[in-house]
Amino acid sequence: MGSDSDLPVMQSAADILKDFNIEFELTVVSAHRTPRRMVEYASKAKERGLKVIIAGAGGAAHLPGMIASITSLPVIGVPIKSSNSIDGWDSILSILQMPNGIPVATVALNASKNAGILAATIVGAFDDEIGKKIAAYKLNMEADVIKKVEKLKKVGWQNKFDE
Amino acid sequence: MGSDSDLPVMQSAADILKDFNIEFELTVVSAHRTPRRMVEYASKAKERGLKVIIAGAGGAAHLPGMIASITSLPVIGVPIKSSNSIDGWDSILSILQMPNGIPVATVALNASKNAGILAATIVGAFDDEIGKKIAAYKLNMEADVIKKVEKLKKVGWQNKFDE
Amino acid sequence: MGSDSDLPVMQSAADILKDFNIEFELTVVSAHRTPRRMVEYASKAKERGLKVIIAGAGGAAHLPGMIASITSLPVIGVPIKSSNSIDGWDSILSILQMPNGIPVATVALNASKNAGILAATIVGAFDDEIGKKIAAYKLNMEADVIKKVEKLKKVGWQNKFDE
Amino acid sequence: MGSDSDLPVMQSAADILKDFNIEFELTVVSAHRTPRRMVEYASKAKERGLKVIIAGAGGAAHLPGMIASITSLPVIGVPIKSSNSIDGWDSILSILQMPNGIPVATVALNASKNAGILAATIVGAFDDEIGKKIAAYKLNMEADVIKKVEKLKKVGWQNKFDE
Amino acid sequence: MGSDSDLPVMQSAADILKDFNIEFELTVVSAHRTPRRMVEYASKAKERGLKVIIAGAGGAAHLPGMIASITSLPVIGVPIKSSNSIDGWDSILSILQMPNGIPVATVALNASKNAGILAATIVGAFDDEIGKKIAAYKLNMEADVIKKVEKLKKVGWQNKFDE
Amino acid sequence: MGSDSDLPVMQSAADILKDFNIEFELTVVSAHRTPRRMVEYASKAKERGLKVIIAGAGGAAHLPGMIASITSLPVIGVPIKSSNSIDGWDSILSILQMPNGIPVATVALNASKNAGILAATIVGAFDDEIGKKIAAYKLNMEADVIKKVEKLKKVGWQNKFDE
Amino acid sequence: MGSDSDLPVMQSAADILKDFNIEFELTVVSAHRTPRRMVEYASKAKERGLKVIIAGAGGAAHLPGMIASITSLPVIGVPIKSSNSIDGWDSILSILQMPNGIPVATVALNASKNAGILAATIVGAFDDEIGKKIAAYKLNMEADVIKKVEKLKKVGWQNKFDE
Amino acid sequence: MGSDSDLPVMQSAADILKDFNIEFELTVVSAHRTPRRMVEYASKAKERGLKVIIAGAGGAAHLPGMIASITSLPVIGVPIKSSNSIDGWDSILSILQMPNGIPVATVALNASKNAGILAATIVGAFDDEIGKKIAAYKLNMEADVIKKVEKLKKVGWQNKFDE
Repeated sequence: MGSDSDLPVMQSAADILKDFNIEFELTVVSAHRTPRRMVEYASKAKERGLKVIIAGAGGAAHLPGMIASITSLPVIGVPIKSSNSIDGWDSILSILQMPNGIPVATVALNASKNAGILAATIVGAFDDEIGKKIAAYKLNMEADVIKKVEKLKKVGWQNKFDE
Repeated sequence: MGSDSDLPVMQSAADILKDFNIEFELTVVSAHRTPRRMVEYASKAKERGLKVIIAGAGGAAHLPGMIASITSLPVIGVPIKSSNSIDGWDSILSILQMPNGIPVATVALNASKNAGILAATIVGAFDDEIGKKIAAYKLNMEADVIKKVEKLKKVGWQNKFDE
Repeated sequence: MGSDSDLPVMQSAADILKDFNIEFELTVVSAHRTPRRMVEYASKAKERGLKVIIAGAGGAAHLPGMIASITSLPVIGVPIKSSNSIDGWDSILSILQMPNGIPVATVALNASKNAGILAATIVGAFDDEIGKKIAAYKLNMEADVIKKVEKLKKVGWQNKFDE
Repeated sequence: MGSDSDLPVMQSAADILKDFNIEFELTVVSAHRTPRRMVEYASKAKERGLKVIIAGAGGAAHLPGMIASITSLPVIGVPIKSSNSIDGWDSILSILQMPNGIPVATVALNASKNAGILAATIVGAFDDEIGKKIAAYKLNMEADVIKKVEKLKKVGWQNKFDE
Repeated sequence: MGSDSDLPVMQSAADILKDFNIEFELTVVSAHRTPRRMVEYASKAKERGLKVIIAGAGGAAHLPGMIASITSLPVIGVPIKSSNSIDGWDSILSILQMPNGIPVATVALNASKNAGILAATIVGAFDDEIGKKIAAYKLNMEADVIKKVEKLKKVGWQNKFDE
Repeated sequence: MGSDSDLPVMQSAADILKDFNIEFELTVVSAHRTPRRMVEYASKAKERGLKVIIAGAGGAAHLPGMIASITSLPVIGVPIKSSNSIDGWDSILSILQMPNGIPVATVALNASKNAGILAATIVGAFDDEIGKKIAAYKLNMEADVIKKVEKLKKVGWQNKFDE
Repeated sequence: MGSDSDLPVMQSAADILKDFNIEFELTVVSAHRTPRRMVEYASKAKERGLKVIIAGAGGAAHLPGMIASITSLPVIGVPIKSSNSIDGWDSILSILQMPNGIPVATVALNASKNAGILAATIVGAFDDEIGKKIAAYKLNMEADVIKKVEKLKKVGWQNKFDE
Repeated sequence: MGSDSDLPVMQSAADILKDFNIEFELTVVSAHRTPRRMVEYASKAKERGLKVIIAGAGGAAHLPGMIASITSLPVIGVPIKSSNSIDGWDSILSILQMPNGIPVATVALNASKNAGILAATIVGAFDDEIGKKIAAYKLNMEADVIKKVEKLKKVGWQNKFDE
């Protein structure tokens, strides 16, 4: 992530990766304040054994795109709605609209949880055990909704809301 | 892709995958006009051996997100600026802003070439040969720019433009 | 609705239908978390005797459009401004900008009450009793404004505001 | 429609209604240039036997909302991207964002064809013959896509595009 | 104004007109809930001796434009940022983007005070006494700023802020 | 107007004022390139007998607001969509969003014709002859629409379009 | 700055200039309420020895552009998100989109601190001492991030957030 | 500039600097395709004697901000509206919305001419000869407008346009 102030948002990515039992590291790499560290980090990422990089940043968010320009690993970008952001449009467009040759896999505004799930899904496409966990995760989501459908039916929509 | 009218845009993804020598299939699956085919396609994708799905669509673009809701493979979404699109905002937001649990790896507007590169990059993270091709591709891009720098230096910026 | 968290918004649709004495059911169908349930629900809706479907969802809101792609009933879409929505633009455009062939009757942001009224109006076009209720409802709104005009005249605009 | 200059856009609604064999009338009613005619038209619409009104307008598009404020019939609004429109946002928001009590069933920008289909769908919910035509129309769309899938398979994606 | 809920915003227009000692009336006329009253009000406005009409409304704000379509008096429109407005864009565009022939003199979002000043300025262009008050009002604003410049100079920018 | 390149747009204002037989002058005053001329022009406008000023400008359009800050006459602002404008949003917001105390009567994008009509309407509120012309102008617009309604009825909507 | 209400935002510019030990003055100059003072201030700025002018304003923010039209010094513009601003878009576009010939060096929304740093950077390009301070400032930022990296490593991302 | 395809836009900066007789170099440095070259270029810029850097880029435009993060020279950013740009919003926000500590002096969309003038103005604040040229340039612009005013007066607004 580009700043330690992004931790509250980015922690959801860490939480979900932990849930999926996927090894990861979480650190701060700022494109603007530590450009040399960023180049170093991105250059070494693949040989250090990383498979996917999640980069979250706000405002004129250059971190995901710059990491993607240096590494040959897939990079997932999380647009963060920072203070003084213009409703998040700045970070979304700075991450999404990458030029030909250097894609960033962009997820929704502040969607670091989805960034974690996407990283797990990528790993899961090539690792059977993780792949099964992803499939199970989806079935769980489905089951949760079905439970709520049942509950809503039983208690009635008016009572549910009054709870 | 959601419609055969998206072929001119989506063909770049096919071209780049061919360049990287990665096997792929290209077909039409419409979330809105063939919902049953879409469910079928997405349900079978993994067992058929696919590793990544690229889904391009325009307007209220539901294809990438719906595919992602069914399969446990990573899904790359390409927002397409169709006619009567509102400057592409509709397809971007319909693909990018997925809810928690079902991420879509979104690339830039009309950026099907980048979708292809992203797919290759994902495969390359787990397949050494492809991984090396991605690294070589980046070096090539760099070399191309350096060549242009040299040329610009030699002919001068005024002459270059007059060509 | 796509999630039980949408209930506080969608309840207004239920309230107004109850006021109009129109039978309805309210349940959760998630396009993304329960795609199979969604297909099932939409496929059976007409034969079960429904006349109109109201579908509310936020973010990359695919529910209304997906329901509309499966059923041949009219579908009313309610864009919901969920947390992390980009000012509601994402849900509005995901619902409104449907491709040719599969319209969704979109109402204003969070306007589930209007979705209920629109559903009643559709029924009322073919059912005299409901049609008269709609006409009466409009006259009531008019009368309410006239009463406020009178009150404002009597107490004066400065006092009214000081109340 | 609000102006005869909207005819090229609105004609698609007429075409589709003709295809569905649904009786309709097509005329010009301007909220701004013929406000009295508009009040007259909307007041008499129901007693004249109309079931649904489609109103298309561009810019600060008041026609659909004003018609909806007077009649108790369902009103479908078509935002038209007129010259000097601001990318269509003006007509979309002027039609969509109606206050509580007076909904307009809004369709996509310039989507008069969808307005016609929506009108037919509404009629079809209460008229079996039309209802069956809508269902058939959807099956046709599906079949068309399947045919294209087959063709694309046969000729190959590269040849198709070269045609 | 279109609703009595707009009173807190629109009261500033009344306040400033009172300050300028210009006679006015303040009432509720809803384009959507009282279309007949609106036609009546606008039709009679000129013969009743009004010189300028200020119309404030939110969302799909049709009141200013509809009044302008009926009366031949100048109409000032105040876009109001109502709840569920999309950041005020809906009311701004619904009021500003009027078609050729029926202009509305639009002021800034929620700027009912400026609507009052604009009305006074219009009257002041033809009434010397009011004209002089407008000129004096501008000089007063200038003097107020100069006073603040002096104060800021004396106390220093750091202290001022600490106050 | 701010530049002679705005003449093609602003000429419509001149044309309509000529039609209404209202005396006017048309000249170039640039806030950015001739700030001194602008101050001079605005300061003298009232004593020279002007009643209303129409100011059109594009991009970061400061002319209307700056004129309004100096004169005590009503100022009508025309946002012009210049080349490199961002869809006209820049000129609209630069003109519309004036601070308290200095209103600009803003009309639609490129709507110089409406600026002319608004100016005539303002004059017409205090000058009976012009006032009657405005009323007649509105009746004419109405009659024109009615004629088109008749024509459309006679030739049929399909033939009309084929013409 | 355009108003003393901008002081809380603009004070950060003063703070940083003080930190860099660069002489400055901070005052209120309103383009709209004190146009004559603005012309005077901008005309004299260079001969009084100023090197850079920072101008902050909100809404239809004309101050930076008008100052730039008069002086031949570089002008830095700070868009301020004032109350009733439309998410800051109005001030950004009013400052950024200046016509050819009169540039304003625009910084991010509310970014008065960056305006101060930019002013210092401009001075530092021609003054060695200041130039070194800028370089040192950047190294400090880098060091701060590195410290946080270390801390995050030591305490772990979960504990850090729980603090 | 980030790509040689930006040359047609960026050449205006070169042209104006040549007019002002200011030495400059024009080259291609891509943040995304040549990140190492970019770091090298930015690191050496000051010691090579550059005073100001103009960086133009389109889409997710990271070049200006990344250069600014490395050098301690002032950086002027030119947002370029590239193909597949979303109306230029992407490049504007990617350049403008820089975080605290690393400002970029942003100019209008495609405004490379203004970038050149801003660079000259910065140099001119510290170099009397250039400073005088800037002042003369402004007087020239003023004189040009005055000439057009005279011409317009002589030939009349109607004839001018007919030319």
